Amino acid sequence: MELPSEILRQAIDQLTTLPGVGRRSALRYALHLLKQDEADVRDFSEAILRLKTDLHHCRYCHNVSDTEICPICASQKRQRSIVCVVENIQDVMAVENTQQYRGLYHVLGGIISPIDGIGPSDLQIASLVERVRTGVPDPVEEVILALPTTMEGDTTNYYINKLLQPMGVKVTTLARGVAVGDNLEYADEITLGRSIVHRIPFE
Amino acid sequence: MELPSEILRQAIDQLTTLPGVGRRSALRYALHLLKQDEADVRDFSEAILRLKTDLHHCRYCHNVSDTEICPICASQKRQRSIVCVVENIQDVMAVENTQQYRGLYHVLGGIISPIDGIGPSDLQIASLVERVRTGVPDPVEEVILALPTTMEGDTTNYYINKLLQPMGVKVTTLARGVAVGDNLEYADEITLGRSIVHRIPFE
Repeated sequence: MELPSEILRQAIDQLTTLPGVGRRSALRYALHLLKQDEADVRDFSEAILRLKTDLHHCRYCHNVSDTEICPICASQKRQRSIVCVVENIQDVMAVENTQQYRGLYHVLGGIISPIDGIGPSDLQIASLVERVRTGVPDPVEEVILALPTTMEGDTTNYYINKLLQPMGVKVTTLARGVAVGDNLEYADEITLGRSIVHRIPFE
Repeated sequence: MELPSEILRQAIDQLTTLPGVGRRSALRYALHLLKQDEADVRDFSEAILRLKTDLHHCRYCHNVSDTEICPICASQKRQRSIVCVVENIQDVMAVENTQQYRGLYHVLGGIISPIDGIGPSDLQIASLVERVRTGVPDPVEEVILALPTTMEGDTTNYYINKLLQPMGVKVTTLARGVAVGDNLEYADEITLGRSIVHRIPFE
């Protein structure tokens, strides 16, 4: 693609760094921005930059937050003795959207993945252990491991459990099974097997 | 979508203004940017802003350019007496990519569209007429109308032709017909009809 301008080329190069954006989409984005007023593009550009300059990570749960302590960790209406451990920020939003959970969170920022060179020290695992040990912001009675059911997720679960078990805290994990609305015949054997093994009383 | 942060929400709002970007993609882009170094995000943000602050529109052809006069209009190797009139910047790139055209351009910045409230005065039509009248930067012998074959394109062609015809400049338009590689049976009748009416000597 022959571009008439170096400045346009640089903007397109930057836009293609976004996940799933190719050069054709990036060109369309750049030409769209080019048509906007300077004030609007300035707002756009500043909103992006503020993601790095103004956005905090909560001191306790490491979720993104506008304040040093996020609204969830600051709320006295939550069950403050339960901590749900998730891989990333999207997972917090997913659990919040269920409206079934009233405890606190702990965002690891990833999961242990030797292939990608991510070890325990790259994640917020030490701070989780510290949180259980010191009871700051509040004493922890239960840690729910809500990590993906992949090899990396299982490794991370195992690693965290080994650290937390001696501390006398209750460690649980998400129930796995056939999804609501799914036909049994189409469920994979491992999932269906787990649904059978962990069957629950009929209410 | 419940967001943990107002700053994140603002960035997502801005990203959804891009054409074809929904809230889910915008969230993915924002969280991707959040993971980058501050210097990288600053580069990203500045490259976007420079589109409005540093990018020029060529004084003659109104294409985007890093300089006051674009490289095409400044080049003495081009056929400077032929001007190809196009709707937008993408069309200049499309024609340049054919490597079949060595003349200059004139970017209208749109086409006449009463439905969208775009009239001749919103476009670079007066400057095209001025360019033909004054012969600046160079005397114009031929104007090629390379606008889309839509009602709006035809209206714009008609309008420009009416202004240019009295000035004694040759006005041409792109050949239309069955695309190279297309089967005749699948071509629409209007396109095939034009191919027959405007048939050319066999070489």
